[in-house]
Amino acid sequence: MELSEALKKLNDLEAKEFAYNHALGILSYDGETSAPKGGAEPRGRTMGILSGEVYKLSTGEEAMRILDALREHMDELSEGDRRRVELREKSMRELRAIPQEEYTGYQELLNEVSAVWHEAKVKSDYPMFEPYLGKIIDANRRFAGLVAPDMDPYNYCLDQYEEGLTKERCDEFFGELRREIVPLLERVKAAPQIETGFLSVDFPLEDQRKLSNRLMERIGIDRRYCGIGEVEHPFTTNFTKWDVRITTNYDTRNFLSSLYSVVHEGGHALYELGGEDRDMYTSLCGGISMGVHESQSRFYENVIGRSREFIKLIYPDLVLLCPALGEHTPEELYRAANVAAPSLIRTEADELTYSLHIMVRYEMEKAMIEGGVKTGELPDMWNALYKEYLGVDVPDARRGILQDSHWSGGGIGYFPSYALGSAYGAQLLAKMRESVDIYGAIAAGDLSPVNGWLREHIWKYGRLKKPTELMEAAFGGPFDPHYYTDYLQRKFTEVYGLDKC
Amino acid sequence: MELSEALKKLNDLEAKEFAYNHALGILSYDGETSAPKGGAEPRGRTMGILSGEVYKLSTGEEAMRILDALREHMDELSEGDRRRVELREKSMRELRAIPQEEYTGYQELLNEVSAVWHEAKVKSDYPMFEPYLGKIIDANRRFAGLVAPDMDPYNYCLDQYEEGLTKERCDEFFGELRREIVPLLERVKAAPQIETGFLSVDFPLEDQRKLSNRLMERIGIDRRYCGIGEVEHPFTTNFTKWDVRITTNYDTRNFLSSLYSVVHEGGHALYELGGEDRDMYTSLCGGISMGVHESQSRFYENVIGRSREFIKLIYPDLVLLCPALGEHTPEELYRAANVAAPSLIRTEADELTYSLHIMVRYEMEKAMIEGGVKTGELPDMWNALYKEYLGVDVPDARRGILQDSHWSGGGIGYFPSYALGSAYGAQLLAKMRESVDIYGAIAAGDLSPVNGWLREHIWKYGRLKKPTELMEAAFGGPFDPHYYTDYLQRKFTEVYGLDKC
Repeated sequence: MELSEALKKLNDLEAKEFAYNHALGILSYDGETSAPKGGAEPRGRTMGILSGEVYKLSTGEEAMRILDALREHMDELSEGDRRRVELREKSMRELRAIPQEEYTGYQELLNEVSAVWHEAKVKSDYPMFEPYLGKIIDANRRFAGLVAPDMDPYNYCLDQYEEGLTKERCDEFFGELRREIVPLLERVKAAPQIETGFLSVDFPLEDQRKLSNRLMERIGIDRRYCGIGEVEHPFTTNFTKWDVRITTNYDTRNFLSSLYSVVHEGGHALYELGGEDRDMYTSLCGGISMGVHESQSRFYENVIGRSREFIKLIYPDLVLLCPALGEHTPEELYRAANVAAPSLIRTEADELTYSLHIMVRYEMEKAMIEGGVKTGELPDMWNALYKEYLGVDVPDARRGILQDSHWSGGGIGYFPSYALGSAYGAQLLAKMRESVDIYGAIAAGDLSPVNGWLREHIWKYGRLKKPTELMEAAFGGPFDPHYYTDYLQRKFTEVYGLDKC
Repeated sequence: MELSEALKKLNDLEAKEFAYNHALGILSYDGETSAPKGGAEPRGRTMGILSGEVYKLSTGEEAMRILDALREHMDELSEGDRRRVELREKSMRELRAIPQEEYTGYQELLNEVSAVWHEAKVKSDYPMFEPYLGKIIDANRRFAGLVAPDMDPYNYCLDQYEEGLTKERCDEFFGELRREIVPLLERVKAAPQIETGFLSVDFPLEDQRKLSNRLMERIGIDRRYCGIGEVEHPFTTNFTKWDVRITTNYDTRNFLSSLYSVVHEGGHALYELGGEDRDMYTSLCGGISMGVHESQSRFYENVIGRSREFIKLIYPDLVLLCPALGEHTPEELYRAANVAAPSLIRTEADELTYSLHIMVRYEMEKAMIEGGVKTGELPDMWNALYKEYLGVDVPDARRGILQDSHWSGGGIGYFPSYALGSAYGAQLLAKMRESVDIYGAIAAGDLSPVNGWLREHIWKYGRLKKPTELMEAAFGGPFDPHYYTDYLQRKFTEVYGLDKC
């Protein structure tokens, strides 16, 4: 096969894979946002059939022939096309190692579990969810063994979400975080506490919806290409850079919950919206890893969204939509939005204790995949870890082990990327400040210098570079978690006036 | 091929076609309800690729082989399987007559036009829409010529939506309606007018959403299997009997608009929800024709929804959600909901003048397909027909030729089925009253006797019978439009007290 023919066929193949994945993505998004509950079974059948077609396309003889032809011309390929070959080889290795029936069956299982998890969470009924979690753990272990028999199975799981991440790196990273965060949290707990009662003001649904639109505009999201949906557990999904969806969950007595969901998911969306047109419909399109993705979302949520300047910026909108908030100053709101305290729910956790929630899940996942714990014992393990790391008693499964959707969606190995992303974000902040007046830009209500920097250093690359390579180029050096712990020390010392205690 | 093997292969083929059509349906529904505007292009690509796959499946050699095998065993087939063969033969004849590139290109065109029509309507800009309408008319004419070269092209279009419907039957039917409705409308216009000003009370969006849920419950929709979305122009779509979606459009100053959209679309939904489990994932699943579908939706909207008993039934809900309505009696509301007067917008037209709006579109479609009018002249023709039939002056294209989505979605030949459906509904009412106390059931707030009758006579059959055969069996005799004109005479004589004038 000639090079030009092989490249043409590669484009056609990836365009077709895109179409199937697009349809699968919309089916899933619709299932989360709009579909009636009873539609889960037909949706599962449809997704199983379409997943099977993707599998055949991606691992079939034609895909092999294209790859073989391209390999013979590696020196003549552009950097992007070389990377496409590399990415396809990796995913083909993974897919070909898993028999098609198992792959399709797993997709159908995940679709079924979604509804079970939702119901189990509402009923706080772990035993209802347990057999499904068991099947998901077994499938993850089995896939790890099939694809990478020489690799530690949990390292395989981690690598799915952040290429190159290992237990060893996590143990070291989380160890460092614990050493810094736990004593800092003790000092925060001992300091005079911040008034937060006014945050539970009644903020009607319709007005919170208006606030979401305003926030998306404030952080520079182009609404022609980004929608917003309402779900139990917020997430972002993207089909192309011209069609991204964020989601949120409204609580009329806790407006900050949706506010920071929108800014967090908005960070994910900006990353996806910021890719290059030329990469659309190819495997170079989209974010490269969960860690890099979370670095963007948590940067917007915390570094931008919880800054004094951002609170001042959105204060007039907040007072317009919810006049009772006008009885408090922007400074009071800033401090209330940065309260740190041990709590039960990860998604509502503050910036300081957030990583402790992640560490609980990291220890749970290691135990699940290494098989050292039975599924029936997982709630006790969860509760014990929350007591140990955060000092709180978990009252029920709804506010305990059933709170997150990740495991029900097959995402074992995902959680550590949240903490890693937060640490990436702090190091990006330090680097960006060398050339961008970040807080000045926020104060001026124009985030384009910030978005421009991130586009130039992160977004535009899509999947061209490996995560470590991408981040080190952006940092101008190796990853260093001290940027993150220093950032937390500085911020919470200031918010709680710890240097004056 | 053995019979059992052929049947197994038929089931597999139809299950796979179902999966692709399900994905296409969800992509389209999402495009109408949730997708950001900029996502139209990638969605069009995806739908083009998936439509191409359906085309290949439905017309390919394997499908031919299955049909050939089944034809050899026609005598041994069940009634349902014989009908499946017949339905496949019809659609295969149609699809095979249209080259694949044209078929796929047309699907992509329709996806593109959807966004153009939405924008053109907002801007009241017919010239923006005109070239696309031209392409759609050309494609319909061309497909008619390819599939049924011996048939009148507009009769082919009509037959797509109501098997066996012809211009001749329409001319006779619409002639009869005009003869009865026009003088009746004149008498109504001369009678003392009904007070309707209070209908434009402010009814907040959130409360109208609650009302929609209550209405769906009132007409007996099982919400486990039916969702509701918000769109510019309401429609119903179904994927299986376990996943149906209705849509509505809220106007805070016109609550009746959404109220009757919900009841109308709810009628469509009940039909789809009422099929037999055993027909799922086969070509027997779903409503048989647009005329039969509209007979259900317009029965719920008008016969049920605009009855004195239904207004009394929902009156407490209305007053609870919108206390200002409590200043008026149920009787005042009943009369206001049944006001008849010439107007501009079909979807807001009353029961009496509705068919006149349809006649305008029928004359337009005949002219479009027969080619007697240029696309540039269509707005003038529209406006002249509105003046002639309804006596109103059309102020702009938004409230004129651009008001409906049907033509932008390729639906030429669809409109007459609305009027036919209304007439079917009146004849169903007459027949059903022989055994069911319809108004007693409504008054008691339990529509199950009505739903049960319709399930038994219409819904459960899915696509097993041809529309005429189905309706004649339900009527216990041939279709007779006098049931409809008599119903209108009786109802509007009573509402306007014409017998006392």
